[in-house]
Amino acid sequence: MKIAILGGTGDIGEGLALRLAQKHQIIVGSREAEKAQDAANNYNRLLKEKGLKDDIRGMTNLDATKNSDVVILAVKYQFAIQTIQSVEGVLDGKVVVTPIVPMSKQKLCSYTPPEQGSAAKHICSVMPPEIRTVVAFQTLPAPRLADLNDPLGFDVIVCADDEEAKKLVMGLVSDLGNVRPLDGGGLEEAKLVESLTPLLINLAIKNKMKPLSIKFV
Amino acid sequence: MKIAILGGTGDIGEGLALRLAQKHQIIVGSREAEKAQDAANNYNRLLKEKGLKDDIRGMTNLDATKNSDVVILAVKYQFAIQTIQSVEGVLDGKVVVTPIVPMSKQKLCSYTPPEQGSAAKHICSVMPPEIRTVVAFQTLPAPRLADLNDPLGFDVIVCADDEEAKKLVMGLVSDLGNVRPLDGGGLEEAKLVESLTPLLINLAIKNKMKPLSIKFV
Repeated sequence: MKIAILGGTGDIGEGLALRLAQKHQIIVGSREAEKAQDAANNYNRLLKEKGLKDDIRGMTNLDATKNSDVVILAVKYQFAIQTIQSVEGVLDGKVVVTPIVPMSKQKLCSYTPPEQGSAAKHICSVMPPEIRTVVAFQTLPAPRLADLNDPLGFDVIVCADDEEAKKLVMGLVSDLGNVRPLDGGGLEEAKLVESLTPLLINLAIKNKMKPLSIKFV
Repeated sequence: MKIAILGGTGDIGEGLALRLAQKHQIIVGSREAEKAQDAANNYNRLLKEKGLKDDIRGMTNLDATKNSDVVILAVKYQFAIQTIQSVEGVLDGKVVVTPIVPMSKQKLCSYTPPEQGSAAKHICSVMPPEIRTVVAFQTLPAPRLADLNDPLGFDVIVCADDEEAKKLVMGLVSDLGNVRPLDGGGLEEAKLVESLTPLLINLAIKNKMKPLSIKFV
């Protein structure tokens, strides 16, 4: 499958690109083509060192979206709306995946959803209604996902109103390797998933633990 | 330690009573003394069958509170305020533990916090400010906790503004056996913990799994 990772030059984008590249054609997107190509080159170098498949490409967010079936919106919440609007003209027929979490941090982190109830619902509200939106990847700690020596062993919850798009993204979760996809319901349930991220950050801070993920047992 | 479990005749109260009774003096509370005594007798029978310590007592919520150091408010959210107000006169110096989650269910469950932000904050708001409140046990599935053959193996997040009370309750979590307490921060963070319960219920429904708990990995 052809997957664009918008804002794929950092944070969660790196780990998703490295791990999904083993089974899919990955295009890292950025506002500037050069920045995207640099990131793609870096990722390919890391993969080559491990003897892994290393054919990640880099393009502008717009070109990445044009050339993909699935678009992962790997940007911070404050850039989510402008990023999705910058590619809106070429979204037709594609599945948009949001790992986005609106949060604020003082000593600890809070979940700060917009008036729509969740980042996912906010993103949905600015796209044509026929674009299918899927919530996923919120509980993957970026540094561990990008560390190819980390065996993971986590669960990832996937929410969507469209069952076909949900299944497709649950398949992508499995393709990360040693990560179990779980059905979390529809977009109405997105806020229960988005609010896990500040919880995980707080637990790691308060209990002096490495970046944490989640398993349901 | 002397622990009152108000509303301890059902749901999460049963498992907490059975398991904490091995290291603590448990008093099951109910609005009617007879109902509490019946539940205590049933619990003691279950414990005796397993050759376990079986000295649980039953009293009215008021007497249970009077005779305890720690009060666990094991009632549904809609009864939380009236229950705490019914024992308010004898709460002085005690630690109040809330496993309570405000939620509604249609096809799936939603977290429905009150205007105070969480059940914990709501409960706090009706008590004298010197009563220490601790959030705990939200992610323990009642039927598995009450099944003494279940090995558990879960994490439980504990939140409180008073560090001493938090440590005391983290100790109680350990005393359940094979359950790890994690520090979740203060009462401001309670909503991140309370909202885990509807998530766990939804995941079990959507993925056709047994009642689920949580581990942070």
